[in-house]
Amino acid sequence: MQSFKDLIIKNNNEEWFKKIRVGLEKESQRVTLNGVLATTGHPKILGSRSYHPNIQTDFSETQVELITPVFENETDVVSYLGALHEVVLRSMNEDEMLWPLSMPPVLPEKDEDIIIAKLDKFEDVLYRRYLAKSYGKRKQMVSGIHYNFEFNEKFIEKLFEGQQNYLNLVEFKTDLYLKVTRNYLRYRWLVTYLFGATPVSEWGYFDENEMKPNEPVRSIRNSKFGYTNHDDVFVSYESLERYEQDIADLIEKGKLSEEKEFYSPVRLRGGKSMADLKQAGIQYIEIRNIDNNPFASYGITEDQTEFLHIFLMYMLWINNETENPDELLKLGTQINNAVALEDPLEKTSYLTEGMALVSGMKGMLKEINASANWHYLIDKAEDLLNDPQKTISGKMVSYTQNDEFTNNELGIHLGKQYYDKAWEKTYQLEGFRDMELSTQIMIADSLQRGVEVEVIDRSDQFLKLSFNGHVEYVKNANMTSKDNYVVPLMMANKVVTKKVLSETGFRVPQGYEFQSMERARLIYPEISKMGFVVKPKSTNYGLGISIFKEGASQEDYEEALRIAFNEDTDVLVEEFLPGTEYRFFVINGKTRGIMLRVPANVVGDGVSTIEELVKKKNDNPLRGTHHRAPLELIQLGEIEQLMLKEQGLTIHDVLSKGQIAYLRENSNVSTGGDSIDMTDEIPEYYKIIAEQAVEKLGAVICGIDLIIPDKTVNPFESEKAYGIIEANFNPAMHMHCYPYQGKGRRLTKNVLDLLFPESKR
Amino acid sequence: MQSFKDLIIKNNNEEWFKKIRVGLEKESQRVTLNGVLATTGHPKILGSRSYHPNIQTDFSETQVELITPVFENETDVVSYLGALHEVVLRSMNEDEMLWPLSMPPVLPEKDEDIIIAKLDKFEDVLYRRYLAKSYGKRKQMVSGIHYNFEFNEKFIEKLFEGQQNYLNLVEFKTDLYLKVTRNYLRYRWLVTYLFGATPVSEWGYFDENEMKPNEPVRSIRNSKFGYTNHDDVFVSYESLERYEQDIADLIEKGKLSEEKEFYSPVRLRGGKSMADLKQAGIQYIEIRNIDNNPFASYGITEDQTEFLHIFLMYMLWINNETENPDELLKLGTQINNAVALEDPLEKTSYLTEGMALVSGMKGMLKEINASANWHYLIDKAEDLLNDPQKTISGKMVSYTQNDEFTNNELGIHLGKQYYDKAWEKTYQLEGFRDMELSTQIMIADSLQRGVEVEVIDRSDQFLKLSFNGHVEYVKNANMTSKDNYVVPLMMANKVVTKKVLSETGFRVPQGYEFQSMERARLIYPEISKMGFVVKPKSTNYGLGISIFKEGASQEDYEEALRIAFNEDTDVLVEEFLPGTEYRFFVINGKTRGIMLRVPANVVGDGVSTIEELVKKKNDNPLRGTHHRAPLELIQLGEIEQLMLKEQGLTIHDVLSKGQIAYLRENSNVSTGGDSIDMTDEIPEYYKIIAEQAVEKLGAVICGIDLIIPDKTVNPFESEKAYGIIEANFNPAMHMHCYPYQGKGRRLTKNVLDLLFPESKR
Repeated sequence: MQSFKDLIIKNNNEEWFKKIRVGLEKESQRVTLNGVLATTGHPKILGSRSYHPNIQTDFSETQVELITPVFENETDVVSYLGALHEVVLRSMNEDEMLWPLSMPPVLPEKDEDIIIAKLDKFEDVLYRRYLAKSYGKRKQMVSGIHYNFEFNEKFIEKLFEGQQNYLNLVEFKTDLYLKVTRNYLRYRWLVTYLFGATPVSEWGYFDENEMKPNEPVRSIRNSKFGYTNHDDVFVSYESLERYEQDIADLIEKGKLSEEKEFYSPVRLRGGKSMADLKQAGIQYIEIRNIDNNPFASYGITEDQTEFLHIFLMYMLWINNETENPDELLKLGTQINNAVALEDPLEKTSYLTEGMALVSGMKGMLKEINASANWHYLIDKAEDLLNDPQKTISGKMVSYTQNDEFTNNELGIHLGKQYYDKAWEKTYQLEGFRDMELSTQIMIADSLQRGVEVEVIDRSDQFLKLSFNGHVEYVKNANMTSKDNYVVPLMMANKVVTKKVLSETGFRVPQGYEFQSMERARLIYPEISKMGFVVKPKSTNYGLGISIFKEGASQEDYEEALRIAFNEDTDVLVEEFLPGTEYRFFVINGKTRGIMLRVPANVVGDGVSTIEELVKKKNDNPLRGTHHRAPLELIQLGEIEQLMLKEQGLTIHDVLSKGQIAYLRENSNVSTGGDSIDMTDEIPEYYKIIAEQAVEKLGAVICGIDLIIPDKTVNPFESEKAYGIIEANFNPAMHMHCYPYQGKGRRLTKNVLDLLFPESKR
Repeated sequence: MQSFKDLIIKNNNEEWFKKIRVGLEKESQRVTLNGVLATTGHPKILGSRSYHPNIQTDFSETQVELITPVFENETDVVSYLGALHEVVLRSMNEDEMLWPLSMPPVLPEKDEDIIIAKLDKFEDVLYRRYLAKSYGKRKQMVSGIHYNFEFNEKFIEKLFEGQQNYLNLVEFKTDLYLKVTRNYLRYRWLVTYLFGATPVSEWGYFDENEMKPNEPVRSIRNSKFGYTNHDDVFVSYESLERYEQDIADLIEKGKLSEEKEFYSPVRLRGGKSMADLKQAGIQYIEIRNIDNNPFASYGITEDQTEFLHIFLMYMLWINNETENPDELLKLGTQINNAVALEDPLEKTSYLTEGMALVSGMKGMLKEINASANWHYLIDKAEDLLNDPQKTISGKMVSYTQNDEFTNNELGIHLGKQYYDKAWEKTYQLEGFRDMELSTQIMIADSLQRGVEVEVIDRSDQFLKLSFNGHVEYVKNANMTSKDNYVVPLMMANKVVTKKVLSETGFRVPQGYEFQSMERARLIYPEISKMGFVVKPKSTNYGLGISIFKEGASQEDYEEALRIAFNEDTDVLVEEFLPGTEYRFFVINGKTRGIMLRVPANVVGDGVSTIEELVKKKNDNPLRGTHHRAPLELIQLGEIEQLMLKEQGLTIHDVLSKGQIAYLRENSNVSTGGDSIDMTDEIPEYYKIIAEQAVEKLGAVICGIDLIIPDKTVNPFESEKAYGIIEANFNPAMHMHCYPYQGKGRRLTKNVLDLLFPESKR
């Protein structure tokens, strides 16, 4: 057989070679903000571990395990891990955080205070009891990262083309992964060197009498003192048959309880369960020797995953065939153990081999035309080989040696940092901050309840949500399969909406639609003495609208018509309804939020200038820019200053206590307006009106705007108690979730309840 | 009480005064193209007369009655009548037409050959038998127009404000309509003069011995020889009580069988049934003395309805109170009978009164600030008073006196003209020709099966359809409540569509999405030797697309990227799928049409130049412009001439027999392409593929485009038999209904079956 390198180069398979599928699993311990192991149970709000696809517990009740879906690139997988991290942090007690180190925090004195995970299936609990007995509970408290790696299927097919020595693709693929695995096991020490992050242990991890390393080292976890099988467990990687036979024998002899107890740094995977391996051959491999990186918010950086990606490609690229492959493995383990126990601040004894690996990878990257970033990552690895202080363990030890922190304090310090970040802007979600806020909130709520999220189109805010095989597509967090197609089209057309509502007895502003000035001019006598509005039919942003609250002169009316006809060929002249406008958000027949929007304003304190008041108000973390916060910063531009001037004010004036100054005429939140939740303040009968109107329109998710002059008036008793201005088929949800004032209404959860009633808790 | 005129002027009620609600009913006889009474039954395709809201039969099986819904303006009501007319003509046998005259055509010798309408309800048949006996079958064969008229409700409320003499609004309104009715009955002779259109009768209408007029006259139908009660039937219009009492007495005495046998020129209406009158008072009035205007395609023109509108306004405007109102009525009837029997070519004896009416109406129009068109209509009436030859009856008689036609021939001639018009462009529908073709076709199909149509927004192609209380909204004829909201949003996004389809195992072009040139450039080695397409992600009109059927040079690839990035920030690079593209139109899980689109072309005959061939091809009535025909005219502009040049041709070249010249590269129907129905030619298995793909997308109405290299290959046996290019959520339907070649597929009927399964026949 040709070398894989030749197979890759021969048929221009370089691009396919670069493509992979990757998934991450990451464990960490729940601790208090003082770094003490949490005594609380797994957060109930995360739902049952028996079905949550992304958030589980591993050995102990405190050991949270995050599992990402499989992605085709590193950015997505790390983003998703970040999102899961934030969701878990926000779902835990507010005085708990995730311990950022692989090595456990200071452990309780008594073994019984380490609680085995309270799983639903009794067999899962039994298995953990067995582990506790066999390895000791304390050793099971170590956390780490598993990196699941798969080459692109088509890439493997392309390599297989023309192969003579294999019965089928499955056999070929298995051989390919076995080679990668053996090479990885041989050279994994480089990963231990670069990413090792368990230099010391805290009290309670080692028994007093136990043999233990001379700390600090590069990686206790990856050394013989770490999370490994007993010495008498050896499994061959020569062939899949041998691998399986060896494991079977070990189980037979009672040296392993079952396959999954085999703690190899690489596990061969044939599918979700181990049994798949026989049928399907090796489908992907699980790399298990990655320590949590405490300097990464989520335990691993995108750069690390990219490096592993390149490293595994290189493990396929190199030719390293030998008579007895298992000898390679033993050598690899030997070197790895040695490197793991080296002084983190010293160069490794295997520097020469390390430099050879680096130079080999550089050569590969050149031949396959890799991106500048990949070259940079290998350069960085070279740098770390020459400068061990920059490795992760090197940095950790430097901190403690400089007396900045003890190892325990470093854990608390970094953990707190990530905790603060997660709680700072809870309306945003790591990994999805480029998406619309409502979508970010919906993703967070989905992940929390175990609904899997796939972003189908990022810029289009298009999600695929699934729960136990039930799939729903959602756009903008409010467009779903529950609404029928013609309803939003109806709501997009103001005239149609009004027609349907008024036909069914709801009060809407009466009015006319005109295609010409001439026709529109004729109705002047009729409206001259009433309040009315002139507006273009189809524009939606307030452009070309004139409001005459108490009639208008013929000239003013005609000027308003001219302005409106400049915007659209169709112009509406409508009765003006006086009163306060409220947005009713109706989901599945129930009013879930009512919002009052108030123009940008500040309230005086008798001391501060308007400029200072604006600055203070803008300090609210809910305020941001570009719709990536629930409220926008108040500006002090021309429009605002003009508005102040009209009130006889400048930005340098001091307002008396309680005095309000408005900075805008319009109440849009997008120009600094306040959102005030009124859900509990508006009487029930108006909710019924809103719900009935939405029902008549046939909408399931709808924002409907009512003008109410006096909310104490019962609309079922007074004809003019309200008027419906508009129904919105793409209503913003985030402002309800995080209002400026009043209670937040988590509408995204209502939508999820509607889409996945089976996930409701 | 003040005069109504004062009430109108006082509070600026002029505009409300102008607003009305109006509905039309129109009868006509079905005849052969030779003017012989049809012997066939009411067309089965129109469904049962027991529920059809718009198309009924009156006395005889041949007497079609068209009933419009109520509208707020004349344009809409006449449009709807026109549409009903065309639908009925196209639903009848192809050798039948509608008789355009109120007076019946030559009637059969034997009474029994006049067939009483075969209605479902036996009581309806019994009533017609009674009429036949009481008045004779032949007199019942006269047709006419009923004009239902109602003032705006709010107008009446405004007049009622501050009234002291009335118990309630109902009483006031009843009085108002009684006044209008009495005045109308007094002055109705003017309508007989202007619109009378029954100057002569055909053989078989009058008995040989019967008293009959000295023909020609203005209106037999409105004279004592016409469609009236027996002489001893007189009913008072002094009050509603007297009116009802008189009718009750006549029934008691056996002079009327029931209320509806009272053939007054004005019937008072309280609702749909006569019994409503007691409860609701007069709600509207039904004007019944309008002869069918044979010069109007549908029996009445918009101008006529506008005139009646003004005339009825004037009947409210004038003060004409007297001690004994019934004397007015008797006088009115006397004058009307006299005018009806006047010579149509002579001035009326009541010219003075006529001129006074005209001048009164002019005064009213001035005071209420009426439009120029209304002034014009009254000027025209004045003109007709002075020039009787221009009245309808005058024109009819002139034709016969000039020996151009006999009255019978005139009927045949005009009827044939309207018949031809209805059959000329069957893909269009009178009254709706400004709307999109698919919507026009759907309206026609709806009217045919008795689904009521309300155009909610004309320019937006928004319809409200209802059938027995079941309402459905439809936009563009293909957007309905049956599709869910998120599906079309999915289809609008090419990347999402492909993702969903490929995840579920359908073959779609493989590809990449790029946001930058740099990234896109990198994949060149991979695609250099395959067919591929570079296109902007979101534009849809072929802009910025480059196709490389067999790979491309690096330079060409980068140029294509530049072109695409000029159009969009996201660019797709996709595998090129060779083969023929077919549009599969799937409705509710079934493929209802398959279309092949061929670029604009002509086929040689060995004699004609390309220019002549194009002209000939464009003569096809299916070709038109601006999407108001199923096919577009082939142009001979720059693009077409360039395309010919590339084939070594000019427009002056003669093509040999069978030689094809293409005039366009693209196959769009909008640039003159041909649509070829392939529904029966494409094997079943591809229909299954299309149906399954549409099901996976979750769509109910969907146009899905498949590339098929060889349709004889079974796609379930060969992996690359097809590729899905796109799914369209707003697929054109009209080209399937009226293809250039092959069988038309009436997709609009499939959509109606889906929306209203209960209306399916």
